[in-house]
Amino acid sequence: MEHFPGIKEHVQFEGHESCNPLAFKYYDPNRLVNGRTMQDHLRFAVAYWHTFQGGGADIFGSAAFNRSWHKETDLYKRAENTLDAAFEFFQKLNVPYYCFHDRDLASEGSDFVESCRILESIVTKAKEKQKETGVKLLWGTANLFGHPRYTNGAATNPDAHVFAYAAAQVKVAIDITHELGGENYVFWGGREGYETLLNTNMKRERENMATFLHMAVTYAKRIGFKGQFLIEPKPKEPTKHQYDFDSATVLGFLREFDLIEDFKLNIEANHATLAGHDVEHDLMVASLAGKLGSLDVNQGDTLLGWDTDQFPTNIYSAIKSMLVVLKQGGIAPGGLNFDAKLRRSSCTTEDLFYAHIGGMDTYARALLIAQKMIDDGVFDQFIEQRYSSYQSGIGKKITKNDSSFEELERYILEKGEPDIRSGRQEMLENIFNSYL
Amino acid sequence: MEHFPGIKEHVQFEGHESCNPLAFKYYDPNRLVNGRTMQDHLRFAVAYWHTFQGGGADIFGSAAFNRSWHKETDLYKRAENTLDAAFEFFQKLNVPYYCFHDRDLASEGSDFVESCRILESIVTKAKEKQKETGVKLLWGTANLFGHPRYTNGAATNPDAHVFAYAAAQVKVAIDITHELGGENYVFWGGREGYETLLNTNMKRERENMATFLHMAVTYAKRIGFKGQFLIEPKPKEPTKHQYDFDSATVLGFLREFDLIEDFKLNIEANHATLAGHDVEHDLMVASLAGKLGSLDVNQGDTLLGWDTDQFPTNIYSAIKSMLVVLKQGGIAPGGLNFDAKLRRSSCTTEDLFYAHIGGMDTYARALLIAQKMIDDGVFDQFIEQRYSSYQSGIGKKITKNDSSFEELERYILEKGEPDIRSGRQEMLENIFNSYL
Amino acid sequence: MEHFPGIKEHVQFEGHESCNPLAFKYYDPNRLVNGRTMQDHLRFAVAYWHTFQGGGADIFGSAAFNRSWHKETDLYKRAENTLDAAFEFFQKLNVPYYCFHDRDLASEGSDFVESCRILESIVTKAKEKQKETGVKLLWGTANLFGHPRYTNGAATNPDAHVFAYAAAQVKVAIDITHELGGENYVFWGGREGYETLLNTNMKRERENMATFLHMAVTYAKRIGFKGQFLIEPKPKEPTKHQYDFDSATVLGFLREFDLIEDFKLNIEANHATLAGHDVEHDLMVASLAGKLGSLDVNQGDTLLGWDTDQFPTNIYSAIKSMLVVLKQGGIAPGGLNFDAKLRRSSCTTEDLFYAHIGGMDTYARALLIAQKMIDDGVFDQFIEQRYSSYQSGIGKKITKNDSSFEELERYILEKGEPDIRSGRQEMLENIFNSYL
Amino acid sequence: MEHFPGIKEHVQFEGHESCNPLAFKYYDPNRLVNGRTMQDHLRFAVAYWHTFQGGGADIFGSAAFNRSWHKETDLYKRAENTLDAAFEFFQKLNVPYYCFHDRDLASEGSDFVESCRILESIVTKAKEKQKETGVKLLWGTANLFGHPRYTNGAATNPDAHVFAYAAAQVKVAIDITHELGGENYVFWGGREGYETLLNTNMKRERENMATFLHMAVTYAKRIGFKGQFLIEPKPKEPTKHQYDFDSATVLGFLREFDLIEDFKLNIEANHATLAGHDVEHDLMVASLAGKLGSLDVNQGDTLLGWDTDQFPTNIYSAIKSMLVVLKQGGIAPGGLNFDAKLRRSSCTTEDLFYAHIGGMDTYARALLIAQKMIDDGVFDQFIEQRYSSYQSGIGKKITKNDSSFEELERYILEKGEPDIRSGRQEMLENIFNSYL
Repeated sequence: MEHFPGIKEHVQFEGHESCNPLAFKYYDPNRLVNGRTMQDHLRFAVAYWHTFQGGGADIFGSAAFNRSWHKETDLYKRAENTLDAAFEFFQKLNVPYYCFHDRDLASEGSDFVESCRILESIVTKAKEKQKETGVKLLWGTANLFGHPRYTNGAATNPDAHVFAYAAAQVKVAIDITHELGGENYVFWGGREGYETLLNTNMKRERENMATFLHMAVTYAKRIGFKGQFLIEPKPKEPTKHQYDFDSATVLGFLREFDLIEDFKLNIEANHATLAGHDVEHDLMVASLAGKLGSLDVNQGDTLLGWDTDQFPTNIYSAIKSMLVVLKQGGIAPGGLNFDAKLRRSSCTTEDLFYAHIGGMDTYARALLIAQKMIDDGVFDQFIEQRYSSYQSGIGKKITKNDSSFEELERYILEKGEPDIRSGRQEMLENIFNSYL
Repeated sequence: MEHFPGIKEHVQFEGHESCNPLAFKYYDPNRLVNGRTMQDHLRFAVAYWHTFQGGGADIFGSAAFNRSWHKETDLYKRAENTLDAAFEFFQKLNVPYYCFHDRDLASEGSDFVESCRILESIVTKAKEKQKETGVKLLWGTANLFGHPRYTNGAATNPDAHVFAYAAAQVKVAIDITHELGGENYVFWGGREGYETLLNTNMKRERENMATFLHMAVTYAKRIGFKGQFLIEPKPKEPTKHQYDFDSATVLGFLREFDLIEDFKLNIEANHATLAGHDVEHDLMVASLAGKLGSLDVNQGDTLLGWDTDQFPTNIYSAIKSMLVVLKQGGIAPGGLNFDAKLRRSSCTTEDLFYAHIGGMDTYARALLIAQKMIDDGVFDQFIEQRYSSYQSGIGKKITKNDSSFEELERYILEKGEPDIRSGRQEMLENIFNSYL
Repeated sequence: MEHFPGIKEHVQFEGHESCNPLAFKYYDPNRLVNGRTMQDHLRFAVAYWHTFQGGGADIFGSAAFNRSWHKETDLYKRAENTLDAAFEFFQKLNVPYYCFHDRDLASEGSDFVESCRILESIVTKAKEKQKETGVKLLWGTANLFGHPRYTNGAATNPDAHVFAYAAAQVKVAIDITHELGGENYVFWGGREGYETLLNTNMKRERENMATFLHMAVTYAKRIGFKGQFLIEPKPKEPTKHQYDFDSATVLGFLREFDLIEDFKLNIEANHATLAGHDVEHDLMVASLAGKLGSLDVNQGDTLLGWDTDQFPTNIYSAIKSMLVVLKQGGIAPGGLNFDAKLRRSSCTTEDLFYAHIGGMDTYARALLIAQKMIDDGVFDQFIEQRYSSYQSGIGKKITKNDSSFEELERYILEKGEPDIRSGRQEMLENIFNSYL
Repeated sequence: MEHFPGIKEHVQFEGHESCNPLAFKYYDPNRLVNGRTMQDHLRFAVAYWHTFQGGGADIFGSAAFNRSWHKETDLYKRAENTLDAAFEFFQKLNVPYYCFHDRDLASEGSDFVESCRILESIVTKAKEKQKETGVKLLWGTANLFGHPRYTNGAATNPDAHVFAYAAAQVKVAIDITHELGGENYVFWGGREGYETLLNTNMKRERENMATFLHMAVTYAKRIGFKGQFLIEPKPKEPTKHQYDFDSATVLGFLREFDLIEDFKLNIEANHATLAGHDVEHDLMVASLAGKLGSLDVNQGDTLLGWDTDQFPTNIYSAIKSMLVVLKQGGIAPGGLNFDAKLRRSSCTTEDLFYAHIGGMDTYARALLIAQKMIDDGVFDQFIEQRYSSYQSGIGKKITKNDSSFEELERYILEKGEPDIRSGRQEMLENIFNSYL
């Protein structure tokens, strides 16, 4: 059965003059950019949850999408049909990776044992599909937020029984990610946060969260899973305050609990903006710490206060994101995962193609522009010049922590008032625009 | 010359039945609360900048307050008159502490040398005033944001010359704080941030900021200054993105750069809300790390996006703040500093009294209520019960990191699904309200 | 079958010293306040949707509440059980009113005809229940947002067929509200807005919305429905931009389309804050226009960007709301409807009682305080004095539009600069606090 | 004396391949676009306040720009020097219009009479300059917010004396605008709002505001001023709540007080976003009412909560704005005024050129793209098709208000459930991007 009958074998690259809404205008997978193919630079992944399990529901309305692969009511068959649809989509879109939560692949059964059984059966099939198609798993994760048992958190739950359940579920999720050759494993603490301090022991919760991650590291080593562990920050939603607020908070937590060696970050654009940061800020913070591991590329609406998870089309953010990625030498073994969902009104399967094509083209175009900016060196040279006083003399001593307040006071007594120089923000923004 | 002729010798405690707007209704300095006087619990301080240098200016209008102590144009005399007014105010308000930036005490002169000279002359007089009145210095700090030389930052400036200037200025500010017996010294990185990454080397800036703080620690040791060093987080304003975003970010920074032993945090309520946190969240994060050093008590308007610095009157926030303070055993050597300014319309000197009396009463009342909540133990018992599963069995093993994913999976295979328990948020909020 | 077996016959008033979490501390229905009973002042209503149909689901998790009245799968029986539970709750809580959407009373059937049939059958039973218990219908409304057909709006849908469906549905909803003696009928334009102007004809949509309301007025007159028509503003969520943004926007719309005589406003606190207003602002705007018809009393979290619909416990907002209500002479035929939902963690039926008791007590206490503020007249006198220059002379001429720029220029040439007077905000906030 | 010695006679158009930061890449004043020159389409104006009086001050720092025209301390001479600098700038930038507040042209004197005298003297000179250069006045306005007398508002001040002062000042401002051939006159109610309802009579304030505007209309007629009157909405800042919140609020106000015939709106992008709207939303609301009169083109930072007034460089917003302008047939007699200021760090006069060039190029490019979008008709056709059901049959009857709930119910009983169609948002966003 074909789930996307209206779409021809593969979405093709047709160049930016094309008016075909079902063709790529910029994403040309094998085009070389600075010695690496676009595909290798971008490592795009489709998010199983939004694209195959998302129904367009929101807090005011039930599922609005009518998908062929959801018609079946038997859990096993439905999971298989969904898997078929997913791999048909991956191939037609010509995307190299996908990502999932355990509960995306297969719904929960009546108890833990049945849930594991359904999951294992579909994993076997997924493995075959991967082999057949060459599509790979960028990362797996566990859904520790959807089921009512996780209402008060998973690793941070006030009840040790729930902690244990989360541990058991993550163990299996790591197992299947390992089995499917997942290149990363992601921790998103969906409900690792709190609603009110009136009923919360924040100390206990944070310590338990750290313990949970230590156990995960231990377990992964034991089974020989070599994938990168990633934490995905988000400041709020669903909980009032989530512990993994932003890059800086997570890095601080990892340092505090001696986990910094074993984790990198998966930064989602819309989560960064919910925390009050431009996405490039949170990327830069992670990257400078050597901890930028992967990206969830989407975009939010900064005039709305929730995670809108829109497909990324803003070229400014995309370029600024790719600048950080290119400057750290690429994103592998991470990638660019479309953690984005169709607007509720975009109810057809064609919309799934439009949305992903738009996102892929936006980032392919951004890659080209960012690489050109780096090649031209205009911004880099400006910055180097701007900070050049730290290359010699008193500046160099400062950077080596080889001076003192006393010496610097003497310096001022001798040199007097510094000159004031323009940061040239408007000029630089104009130059940025000239690359569009 | 008397600057507040309309106010009698001291503002008196008259009890909550009093309708006298110039009396305390709750702040009774010598009343014992859990074995300590209110004055010792609260350690209130007046902020020299807002109260004596603030003119009610905002971005759309020039100074609107007409103060007797600002009439003089000679810098020295004006600084002296301001000092006189300040100590008259402290005594009439009966407040034990004050706080200042170097540039509040005295304006900048024509060059660094003259600036130091004016400052030293006024410090000599301040020392006498302190001796005469018993009013003490809670903390000093340096204004590294007002002068154009600091437009692009102080310790994070792209120009080493400015870094040096900031160092020289802070050296003197620590000197005078030391001379005046300041119990703390605060670092607020007013412009330690950036406007756009297009012209910014974030790595260099953060490293320099750390170097600056290391130099400060070294210097303080050298001169024997024993006061507590405090960093005050703020997420934005005046810069687009400030490095000291919130408690968690600053703690992460201190850990990253090996500064965690030498600094605590000074948390300002309105800065916390600008970062998207309830104030009690940021207090709790700092306190759990053993790093809550002092409070800037004010309040913002969460429907406005800038630092409104209003005098605190919201009893909910005040109680929640005092709960954190009491549970960590108090705030000394820090205190509660009113980093708050009159609304532009409140142009008389009487308004300065109303505002401080309101703030002091709000926190005195909050102290009484928070202590009663602790004594009654209703919330504490609820929380203890809620997390009791970690006191024994598998829960205890978890807290000791003495279990594993494998063991926890076996636990779930045996025990099955956990029960789901209510967090009773609404009931707890009702109980909270019953204390008002 | 009893759905709330743990709750005794009626929740009783026990006074503010009571520690019984299942008693009223302030709400004493028959207590007279300024010659009217508390019950008549407050006219509390329970929201059928949150309280009886809400499952604690959010965008990241499925329904978490396990209600006895939802166990039945047959649509008719389930609706009956829910009705039984609702009236048991109303009586035990001792609340005089309830509110519903058509789809709360009964789920949609397989087509319009069946939907109407189920609805009518349950309405017959509801009518009996009302008669038995004396509980009355404050208002009815139609759910024009949950079903996928309304994805792109109801009255503002690009498809006339959907407009027609919405009209048919509202016709029936008005019919049943009329049949049940509803004292008001509410229009909340759940999806009357847009996501992007790229696909939107805003002119057509706004005109159609007006036409829809005109048809409703015509229909109500035709059937003799005398209830008050109310519009409920909300600025966003679920759509990016909702047409009924806030009080001022809706009043402008009603004036533009000649609907101002036939509608009043139902103001929800959390909707006001989402629009950037304190709730008392939106209440005041509506009230001054003679258009404040009813209140949805809840509270949001201004640090979160979505409609959290929490039960109201903030005494400040409640007092400020009641001041507006009392000053306009009361809220009848409207009332105070708890458009509020339990936190996801508050999963027991006891939590429903705690939540409503807390909300009712908060508003009862606010009523007492607001009435005392009015009786004391402190704020009113301050305001009267502050604007007294408009009572005579040039001020009086201004208020009568009986002056001119020329005359006022002559006035200034003669009188010169005005004095500047303090607005005394801090003092007034202290006085406000003294009433708590 | 030359104030901008580093800039050659005129900034030239050099095309988008040029790397000269002091040349236009897109703004080619005489290029025809749909039969009208770019200059006539865009009608750019420079804001006297930011560009010639702005010093880069913010709430944390004093003026940081060192301008040659500010060196003089004599008020008259300083005003003349500033005027010289301004007209040198206009000519070198080749911009056709400017805008001012009365207090930009000349500072206030010691009293009203002296203020008028200085102002008149500089107006005489400005008139000569306009004649010499051909530069024209787009609009004038009065600064009713900077001086302390306006702390509590101008037309909404609690003191009638201040109302009178504002009237006298606006009278003169209209006089000078008239004398200088201003094509519009703008009302921005800088402090027409309130801080707290505890001290505010909102009814009196709004009525007085209306009376003030009526007087202005009367006065303008009397003196024969034919310029367009414009109101500029802003939701907050400096006051907590400003009465002219957004387009919809102002239109409602104008309708309520019978002012709708005499006013149009001047929409500022950053004010719209502060109100929670995309700028194109507020433009569309005004335009559909026939009331879009002029634009303040700037941009804000939606992650910051204050009016950052940045020069516009975001091409998305610029295109969406120009689409509204083109579709209503242009913006004359209004124009595009750069109500934008340099970042504090951009302290040189070259930065003034970069900033304006960037803004002008952004809007010139947006004009070209928007016109092409209209010519291609892709979006228009999509929308027409999407709403086509209203062109005939039941849809047409609806648009004519020629149907009824009863008829529409019959329609549904006959036709049943509507089809659901995709709004194609992602596809349309991709097409939008293809125009960049």
